[in-house]
Amino acid sequence: MANPYIKQYLMTAGPTPLPPAVSQAMAQPMLYHRAPAFVEVYARALRRLKAVFQTENEVMLFAASGSGAMESAVANLVRPGEPAVVASSGKFGERWAELCDAYGARTVHWRTEWGRKVEPAELDRVLAEQPDAEVVFTTFSETSTGVVNDIRELTDVAHRHGALIAVDAVSGLGAVPLPQDDWGVDVVVAGSQKALMSPPGLAFASANGAALELAAAAPGRRFYFDWGATVSVQRKDPPDSPFTPAVGLVQALDVALGLIEDEGLAEVFERHRLLGRATRAAARTLELELFGPDDDNANVVTAIRLPQDLDGAAVPRLMRDRFGITVAGGQGHLKGRIVRIAHCGYFGAFDVVVTIAALEMTLSELGHEVELGAGVAAAQRAFLEAGVPLATPA
Amino acid sequence: MANPYIKQYLMTAGPTPLPPAVSQAMAQPMLYHRAPAFVEVYARALRRLKAVFQTENEVMLFAASGSGAMESAVANLVRPGEPAVVASSGKFGERWAELCDAYGARTVHWRTEWGRKVEPAELDRVLAEQPDAEVVFTTFSETSTGVVNDIRELTDVAHRHGALIAVDAVSGLGAVPLPQDDWGVDVVVAGSQKALMSPPGLAFASANGAALELAAAAPGRRFYFDWGATVSVQRKDPPDSPFTPAVGLVQALDVALGLIEDEGLAEVFERHRLLGRATRAAARTLELELFGPDDDNANVVTAIRLPQDLDGAAVPRLMRDRFGITVAGGQGHLKGRIVRIAHCGYFGAFDVVVTIAALEMTLSELGHEVELGAGVAAAQRAFLEAGVPLATPA
Repeated sequence: MANPYIKQYLMTAGPTPLPPAVSQAMAQPMLYHRAPAFVEVYARALRRLKAVFQTENEVMLFAASGSGAMESAVANLVRPGEPAVVASSGKFGERWAELCDAYGARTVHWRTEWGRKVEPAELDRVLAEQPDAEVVFTTFSETSTGVVNDIRELTDVAHRHGALIAVDAVSGLGAVPLPQDDWGVDVVVAGSQKALMSPPGLAFASANGAALELAAAAPGRRFYFDWGATVSVQRKDPPDSPFTPAVGLVQALDVALGLIEDEGLAEVFERHRLLGRATRAAARTLELELFGPDDDNANVVTAIRLPQDLDGAAVPRLMRDRFGITVAGGQGHLKGRIVRIAHCGYFGAFDVVVTIAALEMTLSELGHEVELGAGVAAAQRAFLEAGVPLATPA
Repeated sequence: MANPYIKQYLMTAGPTPLPPAVSQAMAQPMLYHRAPAFVEVYARALRRLKAVFQTENEVMLFAASGSGAMESAVANLVRPGEPAVVASSGKFGERWAELCDAYGARTVHWRTEWGRKVEPAELDRVLAEQPDAEVVFTTFSETSTGVVNDIRELTDVAHRHGALIAVDAVSGLGAVPLPQDDWGVDVVVAGSQKALMSPPGLAFASANGAALELAAAAPGRRFYFDWGATVSVQRKDPPDSPFTPAVGLVQALDVALGLIEDEGLAEVFERHRLLGRATRAAARTLELELFGPDDDNANVVTAIRLPQDLDGAAVPRLMRDRFGITVAGGQGHLKGRIVRIAHCGYFGAFDVVVTIAALEMTLSELGHEVELGAGVAAAQRAFLEAGVPLATPA
């Protein structure tokens, strides 16, 4: 059990820490969801979501975990017995395959080794063998490994084969550029609790005309996550919701999206780029191997291989219990082999400084030779060299 | 638009007002859902849910609106092409039929007139004609009309015909007794945002062994709402969740359920009985007709017919915009014909006093003859006659 008297730092890729104004939004008195005071907040949050998705689509808002939005894509797009192509590169990519299986698709699962990107050329080859595939499901930021896939290229490949593409951007949206309309991405799903700096419990799906048409062609076998019903009530003036919305979470989301609007989306992406760059620089200086590719776009979570001379599972445990820093270890077969430092959402330069300092102290305590302060200095240099203000929204 | 400078009172049957301690729970710093500090809260909330459901079942917790838990029952129990009996008596009962249709059931929908209870004898007749029906779906407290159905009797009828029963208790659970295990109710679903005094965004499903077995016999066509997967991870020690839980909402729920535990479930039911009784007494004294039966068990929401000499739709509008009291009007064909005063959850005697006072003032302003204070006095008498403390948990 963590010592509650030690100051706590949340450095996980979801839930991520909340800006104080977002936390406070939820402590307000409850509103009736059909009262004007809430409808105004709801309409503004829906409008602000479009800006973050960089789309003209109606961004559907569900009271659900991010996986609920993924399920909405499968429930609306997959046909029993028909092929569905999943291109995965980690744990969350595999969830697409589980979902397609649950919905009775003939799932064609192209697995890329964890820690590598999905190669567009490989997707091209897979699709050439599946001329009937109507949809490709893949992942933007694979939280289990830190990899950020090239969605623009994967979208082009899918479209060349006449397939739509549905992208899980739960952890990447709002951290790394994914201009949905510019790139022509058919479906993007996301969640509230990562780069969008909001509490967990809201999920989003943005589907373009082609995707909504495919969904409408096979109605049924869904209700809560039905796209047609959701889009039609959200498009009313003022917008409505098919079910009681999670009022407090929507109020929090609206405040968080307002912070992103104030900071500017381009500035938000640049801040994440810098956070990722500084974290990778620190790892390199500490002679720790990155688990994913050393990619200037992989700025959501940095996965670092742990030295083999120590008990890997002890690293996140010690960081939390002794130093109050909560980071995630590895999932699945990566348990005990990596540590994942998140920097998506409400994070600034000194969050990286703190986490790297604690990682150095932890490795040292576990008997690994490490020069205290060396990783911190590398991060400091990366931030100073950027020559930009380091403030996060407040 | 409501005047924000007027003190606001929320008197709707969901979302309902939150006790201050519940609101504050959500303003706390975010926790990682696998950290011991959250796991402890999560385990306790799951344990406390069992007490409110009065069951030994594992009560499944979903990040969703109440309708999500209803969908879980249909997705897990209904078979395409097979009969599913729905016994409805209002708008929320009809949702069961929409869900069964969406999942491809051969839906047999027995509609009771809105404002009346589902008669056990009628269900008996319907089931006699449907010997293959495996499940009956019905409603405990029908929020659209104020009616509370006799679930104990309906359960007995279903069981006599070899069918299971699934009950939507979204608005009634925690307000009116529904001892699941004692009555042998196979499935009870509920939501966080009504009598449980928590923010909207959490949904619950409690399924007994027979229901879980029926679900397990036909896997697939569901993932987010799959009962087998949910029960198996929640039963781990410590309990886990299949997807990122809505951390802040679970913290709020735990605090709210702690308040119910402190007050005592029997006392909570008695408080609701008194609130319902006082509200009905006030309506009678004002010579306003109750929409539902004058039932000492209908203590979730009181639906009152509006006098025909005035514009019914103006009543909730004026109460909100002029007096700051948010009540709900009628839904569907009852729009403009009834007003619904909720008293489920964090409500006390003086909430009824305030609402009846504002209703009197509103009717008077709209030109209906009303003796100001008469309804208030009737409510006061009802509370005094009970001779019990009137405090609500704080």
